[in-house]
Formats: sequence, C-alpha cells, structure tokens
Amino acid sequence: MPMTRRGFLERVAAAPAAILVAPAAARTVRTAQTSAVVSEIDGQRLRRTIEGLSLYGRPAGGTFADGISRVAYSDADIAGRQFVTGLMRAAGLSPRIDAAGNILARRPGSRADLPPILIGSHVDSVPSGGNFDGALGSLAALEVVQTLGEHGVITAHPLEVVVWANEEGVAYGHGLCGSRAAAGELADGEMDAVWNGVKMADAVRRIGGDPSRLAEARRARGSIHVYLELHIEQGGTLDAAGVPIGIVEGIVAIDRHEAVIRGVPNHAGTTPMPDRRDALVAASHLVLAVREIVTREPGRHVGTVGQLAVSPNAPNVVPGVVRHTIELRDLSQARIARLADEIRSRARDIAASTRTEIEITLTSRHDPALAAPEIQAAIETSARDCGLASLRLPSGAGHDAQMMARIGPMGMIFVPSLGGVSHSPQESTSWADCARGANVLLRTVLAMDRTSVRS
Amino acid sequence: MPMTRRGFLERVAAAPAAILVAPAAARTVRTAQTSAVVSEIDGQRLRRTIEGLSLYGRPAGGTFADGISRVAYSDADIAGRQFVTGLMRAAGLSPRIDAAGNILARRPGSRADLPPILIGSHVDSVPSGGNFDGALGSLAALEVVQTLGEHGVITAHPLEVVVWANEEGVAYGHGLCGSRAAAGELADGEMDAVWNGVKMADAVRRIGGDPSRLAEARRARGSIHVYLELHIEQGGTLDAAGVPIGIVEGIVAIDRHEAVIRGVPNHAGTTPMPDRRDALVAASHLVLAVREIVTREPGRHVGTVGQLAVSPNAPNVVPGVVRHTIELRDLSQARIARLADEIRSRARDIAASTRTEIEITLTSRHDPALAAPEIQAAIETSARDCGLASLRLPSGAGHDAQMMARIGPMGMIFVPSLGGVSHSPQESTSWADCARGANVLLRTVLAMDRTSVRS
Repeated sequence: MPMTRRGFLERVAAAPAAILVAPAAARTVRTAQTSAVVSEIDGQRLRRTIEGLSLYGRPAGGTFADGISRVAYSDADIAGRQFVTGLMRAAGLSPRIDAAGNILARRPGSRADLPPILIGSHVDSVPSGGNFDGALGSLAALEVVQTLGEHGVITAHPLEVVVWANEEGVAYGHGLCGSRAAAGELADGEMDAVWNGVKMADAVRRIGGDPSRLAEARRARGSIHVYLELHIEQGGTLDAAGVPIGIVEGIVAIDRHEAVIRGVPNHAGTTPMPDRRDALVAASHLVLAVREIVTREPGRHVGTVGQLAVSPNAPNVVPGVVRHTIELRDLSQARIARLADEIRSRARDIAASTRTEIEITLTSRHDPALAAPEIQAAIETSARDCGLASLRLPSGAGHDAQMMARIGPMGMIFVPSLGGVSHSPQESTSWADCARGANVLLRTVLAMDRTSVRS
Repeated sequence: MPMTRRGFLERVAAAPAAILVAPAAARTVRTAQTSAVVSEIDGQRLRRTIEGLSLYGRPAGGTFADGISRVAYSDADIAGRQFVTGLMRAAGLSPRIDAAGNILARRPGSRADLPPILIGSHVDSVPSGGNFDGALGSLAALEVVQTLGEHGVITAHPLEVVVWANEEGVAYGHGLCGSRAAAGELADGEMDAVWNGVKMADAVRRIGGDPSRLAEARRARGSIHVYLELHIEQGGTLDAAGVPIGIVEGIVAIDRHEAVIRGVPNHAGTTPMPDRRDALVAASHLVLAVREIVTREPGRHVGTVGQLAVSPNAPNVVPGVVRHTIELRDLSQARIARLADEIRSRARDIAASTRTEIEITLTSRHDPALAAPEIQAAIETSARDCGLASLRLPSGAGHDAQMMARIGPMGMIFVPSLGGVSHSPQESTSWADCARGANVLLRTVLAMDRTSVRS
C-alpha cells in the first residue's frame, strides 16, 4: 500500500510521545514498505548542505572531488562552522557555542521535564580529508530536525543538534576534544598545550569557546535521553557486503603499546653477519608476529604496526634501536589483553633468537564504548521499516559517541564508505546512502523519543 | 739470539735500496725472532702523539675515554691538523698543504728518480667518534719516518707522510675528499655543495686548501711507488681471532639499492586484516629475506637494511609506503650482483603474497679496490719477522687507500678493534697492538723500498 511522506509522520504523531502540530508540504514520496529508496528527509537538500560545507577548506582551484582540509580551529574550520550555524538559523534554530567550542542547537520538546535527545557529529577534518567524515552526521542531524519542523512534529524530548569541536585531534594531537569536555574527560593542563605556536586555550577562544568556564560544557551522567550519531563507516565492510545500513555494536577498545628493540649499532661494512645484533631484523620478526597472532583467530579484531623508527637510520650502519607502535583494537578488552600476552611471549623468543632486547610497554588504553542494545534494536527496526538491509558491526574508529556513552545511552548508524576509503579526498558515500542513513536516523530519533532507555 | 733495535735497521741498511747514514740511540729492545713484542718504533711516543691528538675535539670536561668529535673542516679538525703539522716539523719535516687540503710531508730518498712511497691516513672523525680511526695510521706514518731518521736510514724512494682531508664525509655527505682529489675523482660542482651554511670551497680554504687549483692536488697514475696505510680494523674479526695483524686483501665493492614498497594506507581501526595491503608487513618480509639470502652461503659478504622510513607513519594508519636501503658489500662484484638478483626475485614473491608493489633500484655502486699481492706478501713477511700472527681479510669499510689504488699499488695493515667497535667513543685498540701495527708498517715500508711492484 503506497504511503505518503506525511503518512509516516502522521503515524509518528499518533504515537504517545510526539505531537503533530502543523501539516507540511504534501510531497508524495515512496516510503519503507514500497521501496528501498526512502526520502522522508529531503535528500537533495542534505546533498546541497554537504556540498555547501565542502567549500570551506577546499584546496584552491579544486572541486568537490579534491576533498577538504578543515583542521580544527583553522580559518577553514571557523568558516565551516559559521556556514553550519547559518543553516541552523535558517532552519529556525538558535545555535549557541559552549565553553568547549561545541555548537549546540536545541529544539524544545513537548515535555520540559525530559532530558534531550542529542544528535550530531563534527565538521573538522584531517588534512586532505574527505567531504563525508563528520559532515554527514552533523548535517543529517540538522536535516532531521528541519524535516520534523516542516511536518510540525514536536517530539516529547527536546532535540539538540550538536557539532563537536576538534574530533580529529590533528590539532593538539588528541581528538574528541569537545565531547571529552562534555564527558568531563579533558586532562589537566590540556588547554596549555601548544600546537603551531598557539595555545589550545587560545584556539578554543578562536571558535567561540571559553576555556575559563570549561566546567559549564560538562554534562552530568543521565542528563541526556540518548545520543545518536550517523557516520560514514570509514571501513569497507558495508560496501563489500552491499548493505546500506550498519548498526554499530560499540566502539572498540584500543590498547596502544610501544615496542623498543635494542640491538647493537655497528658498521655495516665491518661487522660480519653472524656478529650482528640487528634491531631491525628483530623488529621485522615482531611486525610479522603481530600480524600472524592477530589473524590466526577469526573475528573483527585488528592489530597494526603503523609507526616505526630506526636508529641511527643510516644505509651503512647496522640498526641499533627500533621503536614501533603496536595497536590492538576489539570490542572485547579481554581478547586484546590475551593477544598482547601472546605478542609479548613471541617477543621474548625473538629477542633470544636475534640476541636483542625487546621491551613492550602499554602507552595508552581506551575502553570500549558499547552501544545501548535498545538503540541497536531501534536502528534495526528503523532500517527494516525503510526497506533497508542492515548488519551489526563494531566501529574500529573512535567517535564522539564513545564519550557520550559515558553520559547516557548511545547509538550509531553507519553508511557505506565506497571502497572503505576515508581520511582521504577519495572518501565517498553515495548520495542515496547519505539520504538512507539520514532517514534511519530520523526514524530512530522518533523511536527513541517513544522509549525509555536504561542507561 | 737477542738482537738490538739497531741490529734490525743495520740489516735493513745492508739491503740494496736503503742506506744507513748515522747510528742512533743504542736502546736495547726485543725484536722479531725473540718475542711478539717488537718495538722498532717508539711505542711510547706513538701513544703520546695519539693521546695528544685526542685533545682536539674532545668533549668539554671529558677524558680520552670520551672519544672525539673532529668533523672535517671544523675548528677541532683545524686544531688537530695544526697539532700534527707541529709534530712533523718537530721531526724535521716540512709539511705543506695541497690544494685539496691534504697535509703532505716529504722525506727525500737517496734516488731522486724514484717515485715516492706514500704512507698515511686521516685525522678527521665522525661525531662522537673514537681516538684511533685514522689517527693511528696518520701518526704511525710519522712515527715510521721519525724512527728511520733517528736511525739514519735513508730509503731509496722518497717517503711522503700524508694526512688526507675529510675522509669520513660527515661534512658534505661524501667522504674520501682529499684522496678523491688526488685520484681525480672529485665530481663536478662538488665544491659548490653547501653544508651547515658553508660552501665546500670555503671549507677547503679554511684548512689551507685552494679549490681554484684542485688539479694540482691530482696525482698521475704510476706517480707513486706504493701507498701503505695502517688502520684499525673497525670490525671484530682480528679481536675475535686473537690475531694482531690483518693483511687487507682489498676494499670491498658496495652496491646500494633503494627498495620502495607501495601498499594502501588505510585506517587501522576500520580496515579488516584480510583487506590490508600493509607496506610494512611486506618490508618486514623483505628485510628478513635480505638477511637470509646473504647468510645462507659462506663468505665475508654482508647485506644490510640500515635505513627505513614508513609513510604516513602514524600508530593508527596501516602503512602505505615503506622505503628502505639494501646495501651489499663483497670483494667480488659478481657475488654482489648475484645476491641482488636473488633479493629481487624474492621481492617479487613478497609483493605477490602481500598484494603490494616492490621496486628495487640501484642507487650507487663502488667498485672494489684490491690490494697489490706483492704488498700483501710483504706485510705477511713483515708480521712474521716481528713474530706476529696475521690473517688476510677484506676491508668492509671504505678507506683513502681505495682511491690510491687507482694511482698505484696499494696495501693496508689492520690492527684489532676491541670488540669490533668503531665510530664510537668506545672504539679502542691496545697500545701494544698500535705499536705492533706501526712496526709492521715500518718493515713493510723498508721491504717495498727494496721491491719493484707491478701496478
């Protein structure tokens, strides 16, 4: 049975927590039961806002395909944020900037006693990044609120669109800055850090924050109803599976280790092969051991040696010291710990056989952030109602959502990244998938508005 | 039968090419036939001159054990060179500095028609280098000439003590500068190179050279009788074998390659293990393959991956590109070429199994420089006459001698480096071994003075 777009929203309005206030434009659209192409939200408008934002940080003379460099606190970031707050005002919202520099735009609900539903993402990027990472989730959140407004739907819970500051952490080397401020997770002295000659406190002031009042950006545990974030997957799982909607089970735990391998630096011409204690030979064994240990059991866990430095690093000197990272990610911290134990054990064997010393030290630990099961279920139902296939997967990347999981129930929706490419100008998601994700976000917002969730 | 020091020199004087002019101090010493401790030269004086030179470039407040930093053309290098020319004058020589900055001190022979015997080494060092590398050979050459003078021995051939400029090549990145000038092997434009803000031409002027007259520093092929250099081994072969004298068979050929391994950089959190094309995993296989291929056949050849760089080199990014050097050294260029072929073949397999691209390019090639067989034989005889064991070995390190091999017959004498350590403050050679090496040098000079050598 064909349904109009209003039809869905009228059904929503009939649910206890949402009130239909005013009818909106009577565009007829195909919806859930009839087609996989659902456009409750305005997909064309969403596309225009993403393309509009892509002008801020675009390389000189470039096109959309050339991606963006919108590093947090930069002129491009500030201009992009102004573009977004302009869109919010045009949608009838009154954005404010909190002490940490987060942009917040609240739409009241029908019940002033209920905590807000937060939806959003970020608009800063890595250098030479793509147009979808963060931008999609930020602008889809606004699109959802705008759609509800146009259809006169008022949720019971207030809705709050949020654009988190400095998610990527290119500036000052530590990301999730805005959401960490909200979760009370900023480290002492973090505002004194200096990057490119600018103190972080001054950078936060540049985007309208007030580092002297950071405590005001903090949100108490239980002070939000739910946090929802739409994001591109940044991996290739959905694209490879041909599935448009990913239901994030959680954001993986990340343990980062440093391995220091000490051999004996020596003249490459005068040191016979049997006498060498070559730190790079030992490190090569360890790099391969990490891969072998991580891949020999099935699962979504990953292990990476991404950074490696050789000393003295000259063509004619046998390497004396190698330092490299070992990063392990999985939803299960127990599995990560077990893998690290196996790697340490193998490192002992390698040290003995190469006559080197290997020391492996845990340098940072991020706990996993699990998505609320009720929200995962609501996303699944919403996708199904949109006629969209979905699958559950962990997020291997970090997101502001992991900080929000400390405040209240969190859920994330993924849409496919073509070829799994991200943090690159080649990062891409089809406009149809952008709209699909925004529609699932819309339905999930409405579903959660009707639901009480245990935190 | 005990012999006096004069005894040996008198026998030398009786040989056709050397004339005993005046008797010298009648110190009684133990010599060849009676003991391994031979001191034809004055071992104590040699030690004092090495200790004296070690004051130039010594770290502030340091001792002899703290080594030296006497980088070519530096103030310390200039001061050290002045100390050496002072010693030469005190020994009755008249040192001059040629256009390339080499120090030359000639002692006439009895026959003006004969080409000179050159003996020497260098006095510049690497940063935080040791007290023996170059210094021993330079000061032992002077000690030999001084000893001959004290004993009134005049050789048939003129003797020329040489201290080559910028052997190490720390400054301007390319060593053997003085000896390359003598061999006519300086590259066009080399004097225009800039290092630490100083043009090489100006650096050469600082040490008394004249870059506008470099051609005058050049020596024609056949213009020397022989070139002899005493040097510390810088490897551990002699020390491990307990043999005091090394007879250098030649200076190895060096082929240097660059391997570029291209994978696909990707997010370490979102890229499943089976989807990765990790350039560092491929490079690790290649590093181990180089070692395995080089060590599986017996011989003195060596292969080293000493320099390696990862891109983008972040803990959370799967490595996209790795570049590393592969350096192969052996006396036989044919063997080096065969090893390189095997490495290339293995690289193709690694590229296929890791789904990366590997390109290996030859970036520099140094031909081997073989020591003249007659000189090797003379060194062996001289060592035996001193009661010293010797063994033949290649020099894995480069030396000024390799340039002199282009001008005339060349020979090198090695003495043990304790533990094989060099280019380090810990570089050490026992004073007894220093004296042994200088004595073998003395006898070899006299032996070669009596010999005509085919070039």
